[in-house]
Amino acid sequence: MSITVFVTGGTFDKEYNEITGELYFKDTHIREILDLGRSLLKVDVKKLILVDSLNMTDKDRAEIVQHCINAKSKHILITHGTDTMSDTAKVLASQNISKTIVLTGAMIPYKFGSSDGLFNLGCALAFVQVLSHGVYIAMNGKYFRWNEVQKNKESGKFEKIKL
Amino acid sequence: MSITVFVTGGTFDKEYNEITGELYFKDTHIREILDLGRSLLKVDVKKLILVDSLNMTDKDRAEIVQHCINAKSKHILITHGTDTMSDTAKVLASQNISKTIVLTGAMIPYKFGSSDGLFNLGCALAFVQVLSHGVYIAMNGKYFRWNEVQKNKESGKFEKIKL
Amino acid sequence: MSITVFVTGGTFDKEYNEITGELYFKDTHIREILDLGRSLLKVDVKKLILVDSLNMTDKDRAEIVQHCINAKSKHILITHGTDTMSDTAKVLASQNISKTIVLTGAMIPYKFGSSDGLFNLGCALAFVQVLSHGVYIAMNGKYFRWNEVQKNKESGKFEKIKL
Amino acid sequence: MSITVFVTGGTFDKEYNEITGELYFKDTHIREILDLGRSLLKVDVKKLILVDSLNMTDKDRAEIVQHCINAKSKHILITHGTDTMSDTAKVLASQNISKTIVLTGAMIPYKFGSSDGLFNLGCALAFVQVLSHGVYIAMNGKYFRWNEVQKNKESGKFEKIKL
Repeated sequence: MSITVFVTGGTFDKEYNEITGELYFKDTHIREILDLGRSLLKVDVKKLILVDSLNMTDKDRAEIVQHCINAKSKHILITHGTDTMSDTAKVLASQNISKTIVLTGAMIPYKFGSSDGLFNLGCALAFVQVLSHGVYIAMNGKYFRWNEVQKNKESGKFEKIKL
Repeated sequence: MSITVFVTGGTFDKEYNEITGELYFKDTHIREILDLGRSLLKVDVKKLILVDSLNMTDKDRAEIVQHCINAKSKHILITHGTDTMSDTAKVLASQNISKTIVLTGAMIPYKFGSSDGLFNLGCALAFVQVLSHGVYIAMNGKYFRWNEVQKNKESGKFEKIKL
Repeated sequence: MSITVFVTGGTFDKEYNEITGELYFKDTHIREILDLGRSLLKVDVKKLILVDSLNMTDKDRAEIVQHCINAKSKHILITHGTDTMSDTAKVLASQNISKTIVLTGAMIPYKFGSSDGLFNLGCALAFVQVLSHGVYIAMNGKYFRWNEVQKNKESGKFEKIKL
Repeated sequence: MSITVFVTGGTFDKEYNEITGELYFKDTHIREILDLGRSLLKVDVKKLILVDSLNMTDKDRAEIVQHCINAKSKHILITHGTDTMSDTAKVLASQNISKTIVLTGAMIPYKFGSSDGLFNLGCALAFVQVLSHGVYIAMNGKYFRWNEVQKNKESGKFEKIKL
């Protein structure tokens, strides 16, 4: 089994710029995290964009959709900012792609040491191997179908919503 | 869904004793790792023993089996040293317990900062939620049925064996 | 010998707010850093303010001066944002206080794991024990008299200036 | 001012071998620590040996002495295991070398994330710049003359002894 990982940025990949004191994107850390996790999965990592998901545009989402449709693998993981993860999941679901697509992200940048990113990536990689076709969000150790979850902006937690 | 985690020790929970310069067990870090991963799963953590798996006895394994049989949850995760993880999996499989049992561990202690433990625990918790009944080992991002895997002692990697 | 540490904030003590995605101050980490360094020094830590040094006011500086004058210890360490560290040093020097006063800071928050803070605090605590009376800045492993150093805003390094 | 650092090993530079589960030496991390501390000091790092100081021989100590005598710099830092740091300091002191020689070490390996090494190296580098000629031990934030300190094997702390 081969897994395709599409990187779109999000807190996951943010770093601290010690000159400006601001957070920014330099590059993705997914390969580094996979090495740390001693992953032996066949993973093809492709960086699409590196943006805060609040700045993700419709055009960005259309490109993500196109990449998912074109991907040879049936197992697709997307790293994504948490704020609009549900929006991208919704757009993906509307396409009825016959693949298992799992979106995940992080609340704390991987580079900050105490990140939830390593745990989340582990969860998401496991879910993408075994769940049936569909679009899912993997956060807080759980998986959710794209239409049954939303991020609680106050607590930062992903919660199930009534359908 | 509720998940039961049985802690048995292994590299996962080892710490460095700065007085003696040796590795030892003080307590389990599973709850701490779950918090770091912002897990919202219903997880019941129960520490059975804290041993290097090379020192695990038949009696220890019999106890682990008994706890798995008695557990109310159908989803059981066991943290375990990697050296004899396959042996314990075999003993568990011989009991035909109608539950999903996943064993996982770590190559580097969680407390050493650069551990694979957070990733592995994420993977294992995801697998235990979605795999059907049986006994599995989750390492290196993958899951294996109990009888199709062995640890390569030289590389430290879990490899598929021919059945 | 007893050392007084006055905390004023700066990058040293900044943390990441995972809900807003911004950096903020919650509390000082100086005590935690001293414990990590297994310090056995008699250190009296007093938190004066927690501000980004770009926001430090003349009133704040007047208070810092007053605390340095009133302190019983002859050895005073001040943790301070790097951007205006020289300004505060200048104000302190104008008072001709008969004490050894060392200012230090960090380029990366202590909580981000890869911080220079632990190293800088070690340097500063050593310098404050052995340097003669005067006002100094300890950064980049070096110490500078208050009037011979400035922060290079582009490189983030503290450089000697011609007197 | 130029500082010579002689590396002899000790807990400072130990790493965890994930295959054998034992601690071992691969290489020194002093350069890495200096970079993390954003040190701008002129430091010449020379690795002499990499040993647990309990295994350090008289011949090893004779070599360290010879290197200190031959060094062009008047400021010498020696990283050393804590168990026999006092012994090496004594041998060095017997030579009456007209230089400032500071020995330091760590209780926790640098690679384990929560090490006191970064703090200790900061302290030692500061002391070696400002103390007068002599042989010193820098641990726990303090400096001690070679003949006034011993490691308390039970607590791991360096304590002053009555002369």
